[in-house]
Parts: sequence; structure tokens; C-alpha cells
Amino acid sequence: MRRNVLAGNEAVAAETRKMLDGRGIVAVNLISSPGAGKTTLLEKTLEALDGEIGCAVVTGDQRTDNDARRLSGKGANVAQIETGDACHLNAGQVAESLDGVLEDGTKLLFIENVGNLVCPVAFDLGEHFKIALLSVAEGEDKPSKYPSLFATASVVALTKIDLLPHLDFDLAACRKAVRGMRPGAFIFELSAKTGEGMDKWLDYLRSLVD
Amino acid sequence: MRRNVLAGNEAVAAETRKMLDGRGIVAVNLISSPGAGKTTLLEKTLEALDGEIGCAVVTGDQRTDNDARRLSGKGANVAQIETGDACHLNAGQVAESLDGVLEDGTKLLFIENVGNLVCPVAFDLGEHFKIALLSVAEGEDKPSKYPSLFATASVVALTKIDLLPHLDFDLAACRKAVRGMRPGAFIFELSAKTGEGMDKWLDYLRSLVD
Repeated sequence: MRRNVLAGNEAVAAETRKMLDGRGIVAVNLISSPGAGKTTLLEKTLEALDGEIGCAVVTGDQRTDNDARRLSGKGANVAQIETGDACHLNAGQVAESLDGVLEDGTKLLFIENVGNLVCPVAFDLGEHFKIALLSVAEGEDKPSKYPSLFATASVVALTKIDLLPHLDFDLAACRKAVRGMRPGAFIFELSAKTGEGMDKWLDYLRSLVD
Repeated sequence: MRRNVLAGNEAVAAETRKMLDGRGIVAVNLISSPGAGKTTLLEKTLEALDGEIGCAVVTGDQRTDNDARRLSGKGANVAQIETGDACHLNAGQVAESLDGVLEDGTKLLFIENVGNLVCPVAFDLGEHFKIALLSVAEGEDKPSKYPSLFATASVVALTKIDLLPHLDFDLAACRKAVRGMRPGAFIFELSAKTGEGMDKWLDYLRSLVD
């Protein structure tokens, strides 16, 4: 059954990707633990890119539309998906939401998955690639302990680095753990709160839609 | 199929609970996001209770035996379960591990689940109750966004409170969110790092096996 579910999901995801390609839209699937800062990073990102790059967001949570409310009014169309019992978004949910958020001029689609380091990895949503977020408050061993995400995500953002002075977090060990799972991973180190590292992140996003 | 899996799991869990009851062992199932501090809390707990209360630990991760290594040598028997692709422990895995960790005099069994706020909730492991951990670095809205755990867990530990001065975390709002999901929830606020709040936590554990 699981295999059928995944095969059905992949067919929908492939359709979505084809549609996005036809419209020149780059889509990323943001995956992290709950509370790693996906929504805060998106808030600051949408504010920074408003008027410059057309952005859209589909955001998933088990329950509440908190995230959609936080992300609205920043120049991007935002759709919330409440997944109920499910611990990840699936391609069908995302495909159904896209009509409401994509418009002429949309260049960048952010899909903010349900907070979970395991299950979302298996479900292709039609994105072009996955970005893993890891808050430095979570500890540097997470890439080794949750290998499926970190082996899959070509881009990793280490978030909340403003907390580093207050944590026993070994940044070098974390980079090594990430690269142990995926040798070529591109790693950002940033704080959406203080703005540290945000320039590099935003320049990277700009480069995706150049 | 999902229903059959869960029913099979529950039968094994019920057997485990019956066995634990027969031996006078109290079992708790610790559930949180990755990096909320389950292992650190257990390290400090085992150290504090060593020689006083017989403890055993079963700890799950997608991969690595890091946690078992961190928890060993503290007076408790520890078993590591690597779940591979799975995002939660199941009752069969726990039952198989118990022979290796329970001994005469064991009073308290800690089951440290895979870091995940969603999937572990559905799988009874034979525990007597669940304890949810939430790091204050994750944000106070998590109980509302991940209601299944917080509606189920009668005990919640808010961890890493030493970070509060460096975060925009509203403790009162978090308590309210927890109680919104489960009005009578018993909430601990602690830092395993500084020791703040640990006395209350340890006294509570002692009271479980009095």
C-alpha cells in the first residue's frame, strides 16, 4: 500500500513540476523540525524580496493557519494546508493549492512542509529541490541521526545562529556531519532575527531565478 | 492496512504494559521534536537518580547509537533501537529490547522516542503515559500546531529555559497553548544544562515509584 501511495504521489508531483517548469517558476520544499524557524525565515525573505521577485508560499501544519497569517501582507500569495493527522504534505494537497497562489510574474514558490525531519522526505511535492533547516538549538548531531533528509537536501540552512554564544554547539562538527551525509551540500549559516547571514541567503535565492 | 498495523501494535503494547505492571515498573514515553533535549534531560536524570531508583532506558533514533552511548555508564541499562526509515518506535521494537534492560530492582523505564511531534503519538509502546518535551527555542505556538501530542501527553516539560533571555518566547502564552490542548496538563519548566527546575522534575519522578 505504501508503495502505491508513493507512486501515486510521484505522478502528481511530476505533473506539478512540469507545470512549474512551463511557467518558469522555481519551487523549493523547506523541511525541518518544528520550530527550526521556517516561517520566520520566510517572513524575512518575503519582506526582502517584495517588489523584486514574485514569490508564492504554500505552508503546511497539522493544525492552525498561524503560518499563513504570519506570512500574509508581505507581497506574496500564501495558501495554508492543514494536514490533520498527517505528518507531511503530499503532492495532491500542494497541486490543489497552487491555483490560488501562482500568478503571472511568480518566479519563486516556497513550500513550507509540516515540521518533521523524517516523513516529509519521502513525499515529492513537485519541487525542484529540498532545503533542510536545522536550528543550532537542536544540536550538531541531527544530520547523522536523521540521515534521510540530510542525504537528500542539497541545501542546508543552519538557523538561529544568534543563539550560538549561549549553546554548546559545535559548528565545525555540524558542517562535517552535514557533509558526511551529502559531501557537496551548500550550507547557509544565518539568523533571521538579527539578519546575520541573510544577504548570502537572499543572493542565493535571487540567483535561482536570474 | 494502517488500522491493522495499529491494532497489532496495540496488542503488543498491552502485553508489555501488563508485564511492567506485574514487575512494578513505571514506564514513560518521551516524545518531542529532534533536539528538544530528551537525551540531555535523561543524562542528568540518570545521574541524579543513580543509586536511588533503578532506571532503564530504551532510546530510538532513525540512525546512530549516539544516544545510547551518551546515556551509558550512568547506572542504568540502556538499549538503542535504530528505526531506519521509520519515524517512530513501535511496540514490537520496544518489547524486544526490554529483556536486555530490565532487571530486578528496575522501577522506572524511560522510552525515548524518535524526534518527531506527530507520528510517535499514534503508537502505544506499552508505556503508562507520555511526556511531551518542548524546547523554548521552538516557539510557544507548537502545542496549537501539533495538537495530537499535546492533547495526549498529560505531562509537558518545557526545556532549555536557560535560553529564555535570548528568545522572544512567551511562557504564559505557551502554558495557555498547552492547557488549551489539555486543560489539566502538568507543566515542568527546566534547564538540564543549568539545573534550574530539575529538583521539581526529579521529585516528580520519585513520586511515580514511591
